[in-house]
Amino acid sequence: IKSKLKNIGMSIFAVMTKLANEKNAINLSQGFPDFDISPKLIEFVNHFMKDGKNQYAPMPGVPELRKMVSSKIEKLYNCKYDFESDITITVGATQALYTAISVLINPGDEAIIFEPAYDSYAPSVIVNGGKPIYISLQLPDFSIPWSEVNSAITSKTKLIIINSPHNPTGAVISQDDINELERIVRDRNIFIISDEVYEHIVFDGNKHISISESEILRNKSFVISSFGKTFHTTGWKIGYCAAQKILTEEFRKLHQFIVFAVNTPIQYAYAEFLKDEKNYLDVSSFYQKKRDFFLELIKDSKFKPLHSKGTYFQLLDYSQISDKDDFNFAFELIENIKVAVIPLSPFYSRQNDNKLVRICFAKKDEVLYEASQRMKKL
Amino acid sequence: IKSKLKNIGMSIFAVMTKLANEKNAINLSQGFPDFDISPKLIEFVNHFMKDGKNQYAPMPGVPELRKMVSSKIEKLYNCKYDFESDITITVGATQALYTAISVLINPGDEAIIFEPAYDSYAPSVIVNGGKPIYISLQLPDFSIPWSEVNSAITSKTKLIIINSPHNPTGAVISQDDINELERIVRDRNIFIISDEVYEHIVFDGNKHISISESEILRNKSFVISSFGKTFHTTGWKIGYCAAQKILTEEFRKLHQFIVFAVNTPIQYAYAEFLKDEKNYLDVSSFYQKKRDFFLELIKDSKFKPLHSKGTYFQLLDYSQISDKDDFNFAFELIENIKVAVIPLSPFYSRQNDNKLVRICFAKKDEVLYEASQRMKKL
Ligand SMILES: CSCCC(=O)C(=O)O
Ligand SMILES: CSCCC(=O)C(=O)O
Repeated sequence: IKSKLKNIGMSIFAVMTKLANEKNAINLSQGFPDFDISPKLIEFVNHFMKDGKNQYAPMPGVPELRKMVSSKIEKLYNCKYDFESDITITVGATQALYTAISVLINPGDEAIIFEPAYDSYAPSVIVNGGKPIYISLQLPDFSIPWSEVNSAITSKTKLIIINSPHNPTGAVISQDDINELERIVRDRNIFIISDEVYEHIVFDGNKHISISESEILRNKSFVISSFGKTFHTTGWKIGYCAAQKILTEEFRKLHQFIVFAVNTPIQYAYAEFLKDEKNYLDVSSFYQKKRDFFLELIKDSKFKPLHSKGTYFQLLDYSQISDKDDFNFAFELIENIKVAVIPLSPFYSRQNDNKLVRICFAKKDEVLYEASQRMKKL
Repeated sequence: IKSKLKNIGMSIFAVMTKLANEKNAINLSQGFPDFDISPKLIEFVNHFMKDGKNQYAPMPGVPELRKMVSSKIEKLYNCKYDFESDITITVGATQALYTAISVLINPGDEAIIFEPAYDSYAPSVIVNGGKPIYISLQLPDFSIPWSEVNSAITSKTKLIIINSPHNPTGAVISQDDINELERIVRDRNIFIISDEVYEHIVFDGNKHISISESEILRNKSFVISSFGKTFHTTGWKIGYCAAQKILTEEFRKLHQFIVFAVNTPIQYAYAEFLKDEKNYLDVSSFYQKKRDFFLELIKDSKFKPLHSKGTYFQLLDYSQISDKDDFNFAFELIENIKVAVIPLSPFYSRQNDNKLVRICFAKKDEVLYEASQRMKKL
């Protein structure tokens, strides 16, 4: 068989988690919480399983959940998505991303991807015959270089992928970014996929700006989010895609044959859980405490934190410790102090010599404490 | 946007289930059980959620479940799949089918599909730029016309999709079919996707023949199954794909970006549940009783059952009742006697004038009884 993804191996997240387990290291690499989830949520799943909600959900998702998603978006971002025609429940954000990319990308199409980028964007474009056009975010704050974006647009540009709050940097888009993006897509046949899975993890009193807040962008966007990040349930694998009817119609045509539908009892459980808005509104302050706790702990270390405005990730500059490249530095960290982190290079298509690694602080305080003690030794 | 699936609307299963609900009809259309699932299975899910198994599973699936799948296949079909390199847990059979088709099909490739065919095969081929080549199964027993298959093979043929036990007809493949298939693929670059989701629902003492029993075929096949059909949990959406290492490697490259991984607590629960082999070995006799109960009930009706060797579906010939086409007949049935069935036409790419509808007998005895009373009125 002719491989559609020749150079793809195990993802860096899988590699590092596997290594962390083998070496019995503290795992700050792959992004997932290590603490308990809400017992209420477990009760709800249990309840709906016992209540017989164990057969196929409707293809676009359980209506109760789509309604809650639609009203959450309306409340937070002051815009309307009809739960019947505009919201589709998916197998996590990953399936939503893959499906939306498959809808938009035909052989020869170009997709603009900002680097560092989450690892699924480019391969999904490539599998569909498209070509990723990479643009590097600008240090120190990983802002979008809009003049470069403007020059990168061609008649083949079909898609721009936005991710805010941004994994792995914690950067967030601003109203200026929204304005720039509007100018670019307004009169062109260019669409947007907006990965907003960390929408409920934003720090320092800032408010997440959703692409859906702009009417111009909303009409050309697939806005994707996930419950796993918000409710500490990354292994339950449920997310959603919000898009205008005409886009959602094409999305569902593929969704129907990619997975058909999504786990039924969990959809009902999330619908119930979303009724108490504290369950998602309090997540930002929960994670801000974690971040601040960790930053305080490593204040005296040689790791220099970059400013993170959202997500449960923190970039650390290790240039005062080593001039090894980030891969080798990460492997040494596991060996020497038994702490697993993620090097930044795999988020780039090109070689680069940032001395940065990413840690995930969605961990128990005692785990963050122990990790910091080990990190301070360097 | 240019649609990748121009002529695809809502699936016939969704249409009929929606109509059945609206008209308050007995729903024998979409294939799903209406009775309780094992309380043990619910307990297991509950247990693993409480035990903290709520974060990302490994990309290929939880090892415990892959081991159980591998040993089940070995026990039943006397062949070996390494759980590490050959088994991948998927979001139901649908995602496994879509992923395997995406691995194999490049623009211009041809895929042989036998009609009547499950509705996801052809669109998945088309989305990947391939061309479905349809071959009709031969009545009365829906056998594979091998001479036609031989003539249909071209240098572009990349894939043959096999489904046994067969939805919607209940036909099963024989050892002769295996031999024919071996002859065809042996010296050609042709692969097989084998949809065996009804492997545990086979009647009258017959044994399911898996494609994986043939070494020649096993080396060129993605063998796909599902827990939903076997454990009455169609809404939990977990299945698997068994394929030799070299095929699985390509499968996982795409799987990784289509969904990344599958629901964690349910994977653990299924692994536990599979330890008692009665849980899957007894499914055939359970459904045979349902089938026989229903056939006995409609014996005196004008619906004439075709012989079903497996699955939880039964075809009924209605030519003694009406000469309407099957679509109109099905819509009339809902209106007049409030019983929803599936017409056979949507399983065909071409017009045909079979007077056949499909019912699903995975229903409570009282539901089958009430449906039969209504059907006898015609
Ligand atoms: C799907 S595994 C990766 C989890 C994640 O989002 C991350 O670590 O960046
Ligand atoms: C995925 S909905 C269709 C269920 C089914 O397998 C059928 O009714 O044939």
